[in-house]
Amino acid sequence: MKDRLYARLDELYTEMVDIRRYLHQYPELSFQEVKTPAYVADYHRRLGHDVRTGVGERGVVAVLRGAKPGKTVALRADFDALPIQEENDIPYQSKVDGVMHACGHDGHTATLLVLAKVLNCLKEDLKGNVVFIHQHAEELAPGGAMAMIKDGCLEGVDVIFGTHLWATTPYGTIQYRIGPFMAAADRFEIEIRGQGGHGAQPHLTKDAVVVGSQLVMNLQQLVSRRVDPVESAVVSVGSFVAENAFNVISGSARLEGTVRTFNSGVRDFIEREIERIVNGTCMSADADYRYQYDRGYPPVVNHREETERLVKSASRVPGVENVEEAPLQMGAEDFAHYLRHVKGTFFFTGARHPDWEVAYPHHHPKFNIDERAMLVAAKTLGAVTLDYLHKTAEGAELTAET
Amino acid sequence: MKDRLYARLDELYTEMVDIRRYLHQYPELSFQEVKTPAYVADYHRRLGHDVRTGVGERGVVAVLRGAKPGKTVALRADFDALPIQEENDIPYQSKVDGVMHACGHDGHTATLLVLAKVLNCLKEDLKGNVVFIHQHAEELAPGGAMAMIKDGCLEGVDVIFGTHLWATTPYGTIQYRIGPFMAAADRFEIEIRGQGGHGAQPHLTKDAVVVGSQLVMNLQQLVSRRVDPVESAVVSVGSFVAENAFNVISGSARLEGTVRTFNSGVRDFIEREIERIVNGTCMSADADYRYQYDRGYPPVVNHREETERLVKSASRVPGVENVEEAPLQMGAEDFAHYLRHVKGTFFFTGARHPDWEVAYPHHHPKFNIDERAMLVAAKTLGAVTLDYLHKTAEGAELTAET
Amino acid sequence: MKDRLYARLDELYTEMVDIRRYLHQYPELSFQEVKTPAYVADYHRRLGHDVRTGVGERGVVAVLRGAKPGKTVALRADFDALPIQEENDIPYQSKVDGVMHACGHDGHTATLLVLAKVLNCLKEDLKGNVVFIHQHAEELAPGGAMAMIKDGCLEGVDVIFGTHLWATTPYGTIQYRIGPFMAAADRFEIEIRGQGGHGAQPHLTKDAVVVGSQLVMNLQQLVSRRVDPVESAVVSVGSFVAENAFNVISGSARLEGTVRTFNSGVRDFIEREIERIVNGTCMSADADYRYQYDRGYPPVVNHREETERLVKSASRVPGVENVEEAPLQMGAEDFAHYLRHVKGTFFFTGARHPDWEVAYPHHHPKFNIDERAMLVAAKTLGAVTLDYLHKTAEGAELTAET
Amino acid sequence: MKDRLYARLDELYTEMVDIRRYLHQYPELSFQEVKTPAYVADYHRRLGHDVRTGVGERGVVAVLRGAKPGKTVALRADFDALPIQEENDIPYQSKVDGVMHACGHDGHTATLLVLAKVLNCLKEDLKGNVVFIHQHAEELAPGGAMAMIKDGCLEGVDVIFGTHLWATTPYGTIQYRIGPFMAAADRFEIEIRGQGGHGAQPHLTKDAVVVGSQLVMNLQQLVSRRVDPVESAVVSVGSFVAENAFNVISGSARLEGTVRTFNSGVRDFIEREIERIVNGTCMSADADYRYQYDRGYPPVVNHREETERLVKSASRVPGVENVEEAPLQMGAEDFAHYLRHVKGTFFFTGARHPDWEVAYPHHHPKFNIDERAMLVAAKTLGAVTLDYLHKTAEGAELTAET
Repeated sequence: MKDRLYARLDELYTEMVDIRRYLHQYPELSFQEVKTPAYVADYHRRLGHDVRTGVGERGVVAVLRGAKPGKTVALRADFDALPIQEENDIPYQSKVDGVMHACGHDGHTATLLVLAKVLNCLKEDLKGNVVFIHQHAEELAPGGAMAMIKDGCLEGVDVIFGTHLWATTPYGTIQYRIGPFMAAADRFEIEIRGQGGHGAQPHLTKDAVVVGSQLVMNLQQLVSRRVDPVESAVVSVGSFVAENAFNVISGSARLEGTVRTFNSGVRDFIEREIERIVNGTCMSADADYRYQYDRGYPPVVNHREETERLVKSASRVPGVENVEEAPLQMGAEDFAHYLRHVKGTFFFTGARHPDWEVAYPHHHPKFNIDERAMLVAAKTLGAVTLDYLHKTAEGAELTAET
Repeated sequence: MKDRLYARLDELYTEMVDIRRYLHQYPELSFQEVKTPAYVADYHRRLGHDVRTGVGERGVVAVLRGAKPGKTVALRADFDALPIQEENDIPYQSKVDGVMHACGHDGHTATLLVLAKVLNCLKEDLKGNVVFIHQHAEELAPGGAMAMIKDGCLEGVDVIFGTHLWATTPYGTIQYRIGPFMAAADRFEIEIRGQGGHGAQPHLTKDAVVVGSQLVMNLQQLVSRRVDPVESAVVSVGSFVAENAFNVISGSARLEGTVRTFNSGVRDFIEREIERIVNGTCMSADADYRYQYDRGYPPVVNHREETERLVKSASRVPGVENVEEAPLQMGAEDFAHYLRHVKGTFFFTGARHPDWEVAYPHHHPKFNIDERAMLVAAKTLGAVTLDYLHKTAEGAELTAET
Repeated sequence: MKDRLYARLDELYTEMVDIRRYLHQYPELSFQEVKTPAYVADYHRRLGHDVRTGVGERGVVAVLRGAKPGKTVALRADFDALPIQEENDIPYQSKVDGVMHACGHDGHTATLLVLAKVLNCLKEDLKGNVVFIHQHAEELAPGGAMAMIKDGCLEGVDVIFGTHLWATTPYGTIQYRIGPFMAAADRFEIEIRGQGGHGAQPHLTKDAVVVGSQLVMNLQQLVSRRVDPVESAVVSVGSFVAENAFNVISGSARLEGTVRTFNSGVRDFIEREIERIVNGTCMSADADYRYQYDRGYPPVVNHREETERLVKSASRVPGVENVEEAPLQMGAEDFAHYLRHVKGTFFFTGARHPDWEVAYPHHHPKFNIDERAMLVAAKTLGAVTLDYLHKTAEGAELTAET
Repeated sequence: MKDRLYARLDELYTEMVDIRRYLHQYPELSFQEVKTPAYVADYHRRLGHDVRTGVGERGVVAVLRGAKPGKTVALRADFDALPIQEENDIPYQSKVDGVMHACGHDGHTATLLVLAKVLNCLKEDLKGNVVFIHQHAEELAPGGAMAMIKDGCLEGVDVIFGTHLWATTPYGTIQYRIGPFMAAADRFEIEIRGQGGHGAQPHLTKDAVVVGSQLVMNLQQLVSRRVDPVESAVVSVGSFVAENAFNVISGSARLEGTVRTFNSGVRDFIEREIERIVNGTCMSADADYRYQYDRGYPPVVNHREETERLVKSASRVPGVENVEEAPLQMGAEDFAHYLRHVKGTFFFTGARHPDWEVAYPHHHPKFNIDERAMLVAAKTLGAVTLDYLHKTAEGAELTAET
């Protein structure tokens, strides 16, 4: 059955490429997706799947019911794009000014659609169901996952799998990780409220540029001194703005940044310690502040059993020697939310073309993927789906291998 | 003769107020003055003075020739306004949106015009000449003074006097200072050039927010450690901008600031030491930089003999007990340029109304003056002019006192 | 055979305790050990082992040759003590002023001696040899391991095992870790060379206190910004000394610190980056410096196969549920050196007594161990030795289990 | 009468040198002076002056009563030495190991003794009295002045004069300053109380080296941002000690420093602001602290009228062109205390030899003076004493000039 899956996917590879390139030309920003979900829904409808649109506002959920009873596997692909001006000189370049599929979600969607078509062909033998979760707004907190879950996309689902095409990892590899895999990504904002004044009279001011600078220096100690060195954490101040005439001392400064953690204790600790440092630093200068900490996506924590199952299923696809443990990723993914509700795993499918000298990272204006990675992703997701359904089906003496 | 001067000025006080209020309603920004110089030139022409317009582009120079031979005194008033929205609720509020005479230059001009009219009345007895320098663009470097000097406004001038109506010093006082009085005001701009990147991957970046913050902290040592503590100096970073998404590490940061000094050695030293600190700080982080230091107005350094003469002349106007030594001023004035070419002195005329609980500082949207200060200024400038001309006139046995 | 091993060890537990308590009373500092190695050598000689003393200056190596041919397993125990005044009120308190076995090496030695006695009893059935490495000076860089290796202690050895009694982990557990386990521990020393002077004349000095403080702040960025957040690293400045009269500005400051890493790339990087920061910071202040970086113990990197073997062997001793993966340890161990020459693994044997409310950490004046942990350690080391020798012996169809 | 004074001083110049060189060989530390006050007292006794010893514990006060009634002038010289090992290769090198007259107090004493002898010669014509205050312990807070004043040394005194031989100002000059002249010198001590621990476990500590370093950086803002730039102030941390093993994180750090100000408002402000900064900085790190601020000598504030009198008297001694205004001095002097009780002035007598390429500063192991400066000092002090007494004597139509 998996052989049929692989063969059929091979045959439909050009369709996969066509879909991906079409989507690439018409990217839509997070929470502004209209045409993409319509396109996706239409595709599934033509396959005869049950389709629900507007899930969690903009998501699409399609259900394929196997002819035989069994469990339900969810497969998820996200479909939003980024506010980036594409710099690739390619025939299928983005036609939307300042918007670009610079994170491979076009590929995710194409992969899942064609996989859906292929699994649909196998439905007579399918022991259980497959739910295709096409998610909007993965790139922008609070993300689409939470809303889709609230709106029922996981109802009846037993397990979920998802992948990210990963442009900096070689084509032909699958990377998995048990337990914490991708970081929680939070956002903080600090406004220093000092007292502005003439640049020549610092003693009549509370210089917010100095207080803010001191704060940036002091915040370095969070990671260097206060978090257990065997835990991974990042605190970055991305933005520091105290804009002013050169000869006017700033009365206020605004700092914004991100915090990355893998552990809820560390996450809580950093949230509190930032305030401790802000408070002390402002007290030193008799300045006030406003501090806001917004929790973004939680960490992606993969389940052990499901990840081990994926490893087994995947080792037939790119070859066992190409299935490797991924390092911890400081990036975030709202796939994390699904894993808090059902078991499952999220993995990387290598998408760096062997000929590239430079692999532009995700979110880069020159980001691209080796499109063949979509085929690897589709085969791996398809294989783990079949393996799971057939292993867990009642009285399953025969594995999906046969 | 001074008694006639004082009496005539008293009579014309209401005209002075009218002129000031008229100008207050029609302020013009530095280097954009059109109506004000036309108004000024017209006034002098009606007095029969030689008038030259467009001096140094927008200045006006009028000459009153006394009937008797003698020296030439220059008196200077500046006439530009500031990009500030007036917040005073007064009948003569600024009629120009976002522009305001928030530094008293309207008063300076009214003072000098009416003084010119009165001196004109005395011209039969005047031993020498008076040059009225109406300067544009005092508020904005490079200022109007340098251009007017290049354009000849000081030709034939022996001495120059000028005053600033000072809203935070009580009405009825004159403040003088021998030697350094107002600071040199320079501007610097530093661009940190690091390497931007993802907020979760600081190790792949050179974080310009951190480098910039470190730099701000390090620059504090210029004044706290490196300049002789008995010298006065200020280094202020007014603007710090590294604007970015919260989760993107800034590759660049732009800092702008001002330096105030009274001494050319200290000025040169700070210019060099800023670069030393920028260079070392950037080296620590393997970052690059661009550093630019623009010299603004030099320090106002009053000449001893002319200042002592002013003190004597002034002590008859507000009374000797109200003529006091001014503290050093960290603010700058391009009157400084005139004093590098001819002898003279610049002084403050107190303009804080006795009834005010709060005296809003210069450049504040609620700045105002006690208009009677204009009369004190006119009398003092008039007195020192007559004293100087009559003391220095050949065969002058009789002083202007008689 | 393992049953005999366990039974015999149980019988000799009181001897183990006696030896440990004896050694506890007569601790000797690193590189000053005389009586301890003599005691150890004597014990082995009485068992009839080949004994070599003065190995690497102070170490003792004893060899037990099994009656049957096979591989050679080395077991290592360290025997030096620390310059700490014991604060435990126990009958076997240290009798040496200011010296204490505050790290459990007394227990390591007792464990290995009694294990040697028991293995000796089994030698008729032993397929291969056991080398007992009693190492001096584990507590003080450069440590005794390197010298003992140079002096041949690993000649003919196929695999090495060692354990640390760990007072903060519950009695009854074994902790293992594949790959990097304990950190490399390096030392650095920075001398800031500025220019001293009168406290009232900072402008004539190059203030080493300020430069040193700036340096400490800047060094925080190594871990917070420059090392990959998924790598563990620590940079601590332990000592900052610029001692002076309060009113004299320091011309020099001396900083000493430690660096912990698990990865040689990160280690090299930090060594270089410290200098980059020192150099830039000193340049900012026109100061000089001296920088020295001394590499201490490398990281303990356990071999996969040998660790997995240990896990299997250990799972019969404290029970499989008590064999767990250890977190990364920022502490260092010169066992690291052995693992660079032969395969093997280093593990922790939990030694926290269940009744203790507080477990004083290693190097604390009140440090102690649950002595029963020695029995767990001896059984585990013995089991893995027998397992290894019997699994690897030629024609070994029978495992040591039988 | 002044001519007689000058002539007699010229004759006794060699005695002055002898006394100075004798004292130079036998220096005594502050609050440990025994032989020096005995020597001084003996000298005055031999002149027949009323002598009181042990004044304020170790000071000597001698009184010369003029034959005619009048006011009382006090002249003060200090006589303690410093804990410095002399490095001058001179015949009269210090014979006391580690103690040296490195601040010219030997010269002050010689000057005053010989001047006393000369004034004694003139006593028949003297209208009033002269009190010779020989003060111990000027170099070490709390200084000897306060105790001597409490012990009555200023009783009956109308005015006081004192000078310092100043090795970095050319021989032949007198430097005066009206108003604030020398700084207040205070001492502060800060103990950071964090939490020590293992260098590899910063998260279990509160790193006092980091907190202390942050504090040093933050304290720079006192002078750079918070004190009015036209005021002179210095805050120096002279000593920073957190001594420790390199791999142990410091739980405490001790900082000591000095504060220099000229204005009591600024002085109070800095005392408070240091604590504000210490408090905020420690709060940022959840650390505690101990802060102590000890006020040392107040600023030397010379009285206007007495200083102007000195200028007149001095202008006859080294010549009017050599009497100049001194810049503010950041150094301190407990002469300040006398000026809070009686009118008077303190001035510098230039003592840099014209042949010296380098003038070693005060407190340097190679400090020395041009001994001829003693003669200038004696003549100036003598002249102002006679001028004062004779100008202020009842019915004084004749000045001392005649």
